[in-house]
Amino acid sequence: MSLNTFGHLFRFTTWGESHGPAIGCTVDGCPPGVALTEADIQPWLDRRKPGTSKFTTQRREADEVRILSGVFEGVTTGTPIQLMIENTDQRSKDYGDIARAFRPGHADITYHLKYGVRDYRGGGRSSARETASRVAAGGVARAVLAKLVPGLKITGYMVQMGSRGIDRGRFDAAEIERNPFWCPDPVAAADWAGYLDELRLAHNSVGAVIEVVAEGVPPGLGAPLYGKLDADLASAMMSINAVKGVEIGEGMASAALTGVENADEIRMGPEGPLFLTNHAGGILGGISTGQPVVCRFAVKPTSSILTPRATVNSAGEEVDLVTKGRHDPCVGIRAVPVGEAMMALVILDHLLLDRGQTGGARGVIG
Amino acid sequence: MSLNTFGHLFRFTTWGESHGPAIGCTVDGCPPGVALTEADIQPWLDRRKPGTSKFTTQRREADEVRILSGVFEGVTTGTPIQLMIENTDQRSKDYGDIARAFRPGHADITYHLKYGVRDYRGGGRSSARETASRVAAGGVARAVLAKLVPGLKITGYMVQMGSRGIDRGRFDAAEIERNPFWCPDPVAAADWAGYLDELRLAHNSVGAVIEVVAEGVPPGLGAPLYGKLDADLASAMMSINAVKGVEIGEGMASAALTGVENADEIRMGPEGPLFLTNHAGGILGGISTGQPVVCRFAVKPTSSILTPRATVNSAGEEVDLVTKGRHDPCVGIRAVPVGEAMMALVILDHLLLDRGQTGGARGVIG
Amino acid sequence: MSLNTFGHLFRFTTWGESHGPAIGCTVDGCPPGVALTEADIQPWLDRRKPGTSKFTTQRREADEVRILSGVFEGVTTGTPIQLMIENTDQRSKDYGDIARAFRPGHADITYHLKYGVRDYRGGGRSSARETASRVAAGGVARAVLAKLVPGLKITGYMVQMGSRGIDRGRFDAAEIERNPFWCPDPVAAADWAGYLDELRLAHNSVGAVIEVVAEGVPPGLGAPLYGKLDADLASAMMSINAVKGVEIGEGMASAALTGVENADEIRMGPEGPLFLTNHAGGILGGISTGQPVVCRFAVKPTSSILTPRATVNSAGEEVDLVTKGRHDPCVGIRAVPVGEAMMALVILDHLLLDRGQTGGARGVIG
Amino acid sequence: MSLNTFGHLFRFTTWGESHGPAIGCTVDGCPPGVALTEADIQPWLDRRKPGTSKFTTQRREADEVRILSGVFEGVTTGTPIQLMIENTDQRSKDYGDIARAFRPGHADITYHLKYGVRDYRGGGRSSARETASRVAAGGVARAVLAKLVPGLKITGYMVQMGSRGIDRGRFDAAEIERNPFWCPDPVAAADWAGYLDELRLAHNSVGAVIEVVAEGVPPGLGAPLYGKLDADLASAMMSINAVKGVEIGEGMASAALTGVENADEIRMGPEGPLFLTNHAGGILGGISTGQPVVCRFAVKPTSSILTPRATVNSAGEEVDLVTKGRHDPCVGIRAVPVGEAMMALVILDHLLLDRGQTGGARGVIG
Repeated sequence: MSLNTFGHLFRFTTWGESHGPAIGCTVDGCPPGVALTEADIQPWLDRRKPGTSKFTTQRREADEVRILSGVFEGVTTGTPIQLMIENTDQRSKDYGDIARAFRPGHADITYHLKYGVRDYRGGGRSSARETASRVAAGGVARAVLAKLVPGLKITGYMVQMGSRGIDRGRFDAAEIERNPFWCPDPVAAADWAGYLDELRLAHNSVGAVIEVVAEGVPPGLGAPLYGKLDADLASAMMSINAVKGVEIGEGMASAALTGVENADEIRMGPEGPLFLTNHAGGILGGISTGQPVVCRFAVKPTSSILTPRATVNSAGEEVDLVTKGRHDPCVGIRAVPVGEAMMALVILDHLLLDRGQTGGARGVIG
Repeated sequence: MSLNTFGHLFRFTTWGESHGPAIGCTVDGCPPGVALTEADIQPWLDRRKPGTSKFTTQRREADEVRILSGVFEGVTTGTPIQLMIENTDQRSKDYGDIARAFRPGHADITYHLKYGVRDYRGGGRSSARETASRVAAGGVARAVLAKLVPGLKITGYMVQMGSRGIDRGRFDAAEIERNPFWCPDPVAAADWAGYLDELRLAHNSVGAVIEVVAEGVPPGLGAPLYGKLDADLASAMMSINAVKGVEIGEGMASAALTGVENADEIRMGPEGPLFLTNHAGGILGGISTGQPVVCRFAVKPTSSILTPRATVNSAGEEVDLVTKGRHDPCVGIRAVPVGEAMMALVILDHLLLDRGQTGGARGVIG
Repeated sequence: MSLNTFGHLFRFTTWGESHGPAIGCTVDGCPPGVALTEADIQPWLDRRKPGTSKFTTQRREADEVRILSGVFEGVTTGTPIQLMIENTDQRSKDYGDIARAFRPGHADITYHLKYGVRDYRGGGRSSARETASRVAAGGVARAVLAKLVPGLKITGYMVQMGSRGIDRGRFDAAEIERNPFWCPDPVAAADWAGYLDELRLAHNSVGAVIEVVAEGVPPGLGAPLYGKLDADLASAMMSINAVKGVEIGEGMASAALTGVENADEIRMGPEGPLFLTNHAGGILGGISTGQPVVCRFAVKPTSSILTPRATVNSAGEEVDLVTKGRHDPCVGIRAVPVGEAMMALVILDHLLLDRGQTGGARGVIG
Repeated sequence: MSLNTFGHLFRFTTWGESHGPAIGCTVDGCPPGVALTEADIQPWLDRRKPGTSKFTTQRREADEVRILSGVFEGVTTGTPIQLMIENTDQRSKDYGDIARAFRPGHADITYHLKYGVRDYRGGGRSSARETASRVAAGGVARAVLAKLVPGLKITGYMVQMGSRGIDRGRFDAAEIERNPFWCPDPVAAADWAGYLDELRLAHNSVGAVIEVVAEGVPPGLGAPLYGKLDADLASAMMSINAVKGVEIGEGMASAALTGVENADEIRMGPEGPLFLTNHAGGILGGISTGQPVVCRFAVKPTSSILTPRATVNSAGEEVDLVTKGRHDPCVGIRAVPVGEAMMALVILDHLLLDRGQTGGARGVIG
């Protein structure tokens, strides 16, 4: 889990820059014997694809994935799976300002400071385009999970745009796929549409909060103490572009609870212990409880905006920068499928890790 | 960074249970030639030590650290440093209920589910006692950092207890060491004292939010994309017992900002680029900017409380459990030195990783 | 260093099957600012390329490498470098027998036993074709080494074919590039040509011993105790297809030496300590001494031969198998550039690891 | 598998210097629920213990192991197992010469060059004493293997001392435990006794070759391509002090074989495929075949000898050095239990890794 690789046993390494010939990832450690074709991965990529509404970047990318290895006659072989997505809409325009000036709030300056050199075209390696590779890897993880944990269900949605949250009383899972914001609250979705339009026209952008829930996660996943399920989820989500906060269960709000309130009391259900609440977000001591795993993360507003901001360039000159080009007014929207993918990747990784160490043996209750 | 090891190049592995003969950790990858004795580590442990006020557990542990290897004639040799802390106050009392019943909100049940067996004495491996090992490892990291990055300063403090936050207008760094809560706001500290006393007497507990700030962090630290500085901090903090949320800079609140607000504008200062604000918390694209690195995390309330809670035991019987014994009414208090230690460990690890990959070369501005 | 990834800080992950659309590798951790184009890598691949003499497989592969990421305007950026080599001569012939029967001495049967499924076309993942990816990664490592350690020189050659060794008295470095065997002894080369022709016509194959020497390796490289320079070289060479033994310096013959004979005595030279002999092969305690690093490995004979051998197929039927197709009569020949590449990769990895941990500081003598 | 840690999933990290207060190791990733006490580990340590005959160093160490964590009520809990061995016979003598001069053939000089500082007492970290920690870790691995792979049997023995090999026709497994050399050939054992006595009295030392065989290894273990079973064994054995060569099956001799000779032909036995020979040493393509895994390694002669050798000291002065103290005339003898331990550790690690990735599923034959 270093540099460009994520995972313990189910590991993927992403590569590629926004405007290079292609991006992709190598998935290593995939169990053999799982049915897999491009058609299993493509739908997930299509969900993240830019240009599907006026609320996302107008870059047009087919985001067509090719499997170059690791699959034979439609089945995984246990060897590395190479996934490649060609970049088709990388306009070789004049990058003029961006090539030298550093967008405030963007990784331009830190890549420059660290490496002394950077591919400035479209953000290069720090572009959100890299997340397409994660979604592709997530597609592989989902295919494996579908076989190993049939009941597992991962759902991501946006619960806040700017300071406007959803009303949980109106939560409707079916609504999520019906609006461009993956919003489970139809009223909030309508409100956000107007709000984001305003911001967009005002050459501004805004942040968001995404929630990802995994139902049907077996208990016992997590590798204490430094590969805890929640620690790995935190790392996974924080590694997504523009993410600044990660929460499990009650998250930051758990600070305001008392021990009496926070205790998820337990009774015996027909099939074993039953938690009466889920403040813990499905994880205790870094190990899954069997309840839904609930993770939220905050995405900051897109830093590439048409409003001029004060900055400097590599020559040390002070300039006011306007970022032209095609950008998401709320990059959080497209982070939803990415968060889902990371959830799938972390769960599968821990499933394999757990069966490696414990053989998947479970303590009995009752 | 798997199971019980943390870090890429500066790695530590902790071991030990709350009521076993000892706990400790192996620090591997420590640069040679750094002056180090027990006296460099002990003060950090003393800060975390239980029993220093009525607001922490009354367990009395000397928490005396011994260096068993890796140091010769007062200097690190580059070989593994073994740090051991003997457990001296592990009362061999009757664990009766705890041995079989699972405390709601505690890792008891997940360790049981995962491993089928657990050391129930004092929480075993899932006890906050493990954090003493981290603080000891952090002491080693601080000694190295003092040599390699002389200006570096790491400060942790509590900014919220329950729903009661500090007033940042009253922030006084000198105050932090003067109250039992590491609180930088004297008014809040006084308020918390009364509040926590009440809770304690009511057999209850409460959560908290800790903030850790590192000043003087060189720019360029961070290993995109999956070993980002913020991703590793998120993993580090989330791995601390009872932590449920981690934030960098504006954190979850960044969702509510617009792009215009969030952009940390840049001007040229006498010694290079100067950020006018620090919404980013010192990290862009997973790489340090040179500004203070700001990290916050929420600690849930202690789950071991004297108020009876509904639960089950390993026989599958429904019981009402009261957790006797010596417990922190606000375990967040003692998490402050732990958060500082994790910050030091992550920064040093990335410093070494960066000089490995880039040789510490930096891009020039101006 | 697990599954399909090799290296600590300079890590590469290879992917691809012999008869899939392409093979390649992801090089992660490459220092930024190093001049690199396909032209820096291609010459190394050309050395390993099949079909260059009658003594190697007649498969015709251009083995043309493409850099898909990590390089911008001819310079490495510090981000992952994706190298892809398309398979152009993967004849879609009838694999009939091979698809079901297991070649004796080949990985066919173990891949089947482990994974339950395998890409049998041309050996799939276990084909020596995978080594092209290593040679490509090695080309990147060489470009970096050329900048960081200008005096470094890595030379591989064959010292034994079958039971016929070279005469070290006739060792002529210039000869290595002049014959199809990378043989430094012209007399042996002539002898081998006749011998191998005979074997080839007799539908047989033969093993070989390769020696790789690195001159100009700085002292101090190696990460005791389990990432020792020699342990990593052993792992690197043993991971090459068909390798069954690895030696450092005197190797297996050191068993026959006495302590008086084996001690490489030291005197002071004009620029520091000078070893009078090099039984150690440039490595003591897993750390480089500054002397030439000398590594040898034995390659077993190609298992795909035209002589019928007794085996079974996946149906459990006993069959006599003749392996048709295009195969190397002495696969050791093409292992020479692979061994050189692995040497380059291990040395660079340890160079970066060392400067990470120690900052490249060296103890002084004199 | 970096610095002082070995293993993928079953990982151990050793620590400690020859003359510090203690040595030991942390075993992480041990499956839970395995019966384990000090009594399961101690016998293996006793086999490696110095001072048991006149042919090993006269240092008197009880080598008594203590389990400090990870075991509760005699059963492993899945948490890290800390094993500690106190150093009891570290004479604080005058190290005079050794403290400054570098023993030819010893790691003294490379530790100095790498770290600039070293614990010179008894070789410090580079002492063969570190191997006691491996043997202790190996004891844990054996306890787990006894449960998971009941039929597994690991046997190590010496097959060559100096240039004197055993006669395989006289191989008698029962003989191994009867002589101080772990020699399976009673005639050779008698011969070696006289030979080593001579060498010892002549202030000399000698090398050896050790063979370790694991019978009952399940097929399918090994993680191609860079965590191959043989690559990991090569790394494991080469990491043992003084080892200069590692062989699998035919090893270096496989170079002299033809493909017809080398092919291990296969027939169907009553329970599945049956290999007629085992030139491969039980490993094909880095994956176990189910045949005995055969590994050999060469140990160079002890470099600490009483015969004066030319060297330099840290001041750069040329000196003639005689190494006094208690040293093994043939350090290969005590490497036998170490080699066995490494074999056990590698096999268990791959067993867990395999069940993680493939779930232990196996391809069917017949």
